[in-house]
Amino acid sequence: MFSELKNIVYECGKELLKWKRVSFDVKDKNGPDDIVTELDLRTQDLLMEKLLTKFGDIEVLAEEKGLDKRPQASEYWVIDPIDGTVNFSRGMGEYCISIAYVRGDEPEIGMVYAPQMDMMFACRRGYGAFLNDEKIMPHWAKDLGKSIITMGNIKGMTYRYFELLEHQVMRIRIIGSAAIQTAYTASGFADAFISLKANAWDIAAGYLLLKESGGEVVRFDGSRAGIYDQKALYANPYITADLIKILKGWEK
Amino acid sequence: MFSELKNIVYECGKELLKWKRVSFDVKDKNGPDDIVTELDLRTQDLLMEKLLTKFGDIEVLAEEKGLDKRPQASEYWVIDPIDGTVNFSRGMGEYCISIAYVRGDEPEIGMVYAPQMDMMFACRRGYGAFLNDEKIMPHWAKDLGKSIITMGNIKGMTYRYFELLEHQVMRIRIIGSAAIQTAYTASGFADAFISLKANAWDIAAGYLLLKESGGEVVRFDGSRAGIYDQKALYANPYITADLIKILKGWEK
Repeated sequence: MFSELKNIVYECGKELLKWKRVSFDVKDKNGPDDIVTELDLRTQDLLMEKLLTKFGDIEVLAEEKGLDKRPQASEYWVIDPIDGTVNFSRGMGEYCISIAYVRGDEPEIGMVYAPQMDMMFACRRGYGAFLNDEKIMPHWAKDLGKSIITMGNIKGMTYRYFELLEHQVMRIRIIGSAAIQTAYTASGFADAFISLKANAWDIAAGYLLLKESGGEVVRFDGSRAGIYDQKALYANPYITADLIKILKGWEK
Repeated sequence: MFSELKNIVYECGKELLKWKRVSFDVKDKNGPDDIVTELDLRTQDLLMEKLLTKFGDIEVLAEEKGLDKRPQASEYWVIDPIDGTVNFSRGMGEYCISIAYVRGDEPEIGMVYAPQMDMMFACRRGYGAFLNDEKIMPHWAKDLGKSIITMGNIKGMTYRYFELLEHQVMRIRIIGSAAIQTAYTASGFADAFISLKANAWDIAAGYLLLKESGGEVVRFDGSRAGIYDQKALYANPYITADLIKILKGWEK
């Protein structure tokens, strides 16, 4: 299943590269939000058709088409056809396909593929995490002061976390894709992703990637977080405790 | 000169892709800052050697090796061998080579090449801006409320601009490379880059790219900015006035 799924994700990613070369503005009838939705829908349909053909009828959790409720089945796909759709719709390179196969709300397989950068982050539970088929051995910062922290862009929230953290870390990045930011954290390219309002489809794959590369996913009170926690800290194990101390004390 | 320079920049970019595959941690004797400096130096040497061979002895403005003073000559190179070096040193895809040929402090040629995304932004004064040899026709947001704004990550400053702007724009991005963010703005991938503390080598190429694609570069008081203004607004022409109104009123 793992390698077949990877092929499907590659194929869909290559499709996105082609789409990017046409202007989306033609379809901009009701503003940018409509373009974003349409691009998501088109990719979701393409991906689901391939999954159905290859793996049969498995339930899906995804953003569009009323699939955004936690499935009843014990095993299901969690799909973000394009994470970073706003970036993608404008031409930026920071977008990806994110897909996880979940059993009992725990991801068993996770893949994040960023076609423009040709980075395929992939993992199975218990087998480690891989970037373009090479096992990830993350070189994380050992101290918070040398760390790179990533965040989402949530109105009324982000700047407050920015202010809280900027003097304690080396750099803060806001790239516009939760999936890429969790995958970057899993790979040692960054040291944390602070999820302020992520949906399961944004982070299910990144969740497993980070666990498999040795990172931690916890709520801001330090307790274990799952893929349905919208607010959670995805971090390298060296700085998790320090970050929790800051977030916990501040959120009270 | 234009196409020969482009070849040199391509070659150096491909070199960076190779370096990324080796672990930089071997050389991490005195922390990440040393790695960053070394990577910059290596690329700067490589680039300058090629420029010297091809174009002869022309003065250079660049970050490393004491070349960071405004040259006396009327024509000179302005080089950032790796913009986004911190990103690059960790493995992220958001880094680039930025180079401009400047005459009387006005860029005549500008190139920003992001090898991981294979995006070559290039321009000559008076000839328009190009992405991978296709003329850029930017599809910018017409309203501030639908715009994507990019910023640098300057301690003690960024969160304040974030707070000021986040409810007035659609999205804010902090990617970690001023050159990419100006090039994204020039290409219509974003609508503005707010430079809070950029050096000429970070933005000289992006400055011309944006001018050539029809954008504006102004100080926060609305007056015309040049490549030596550390603080400036790089923006799409539809939203420049609105942004200046916000920034001007607030900075007083």
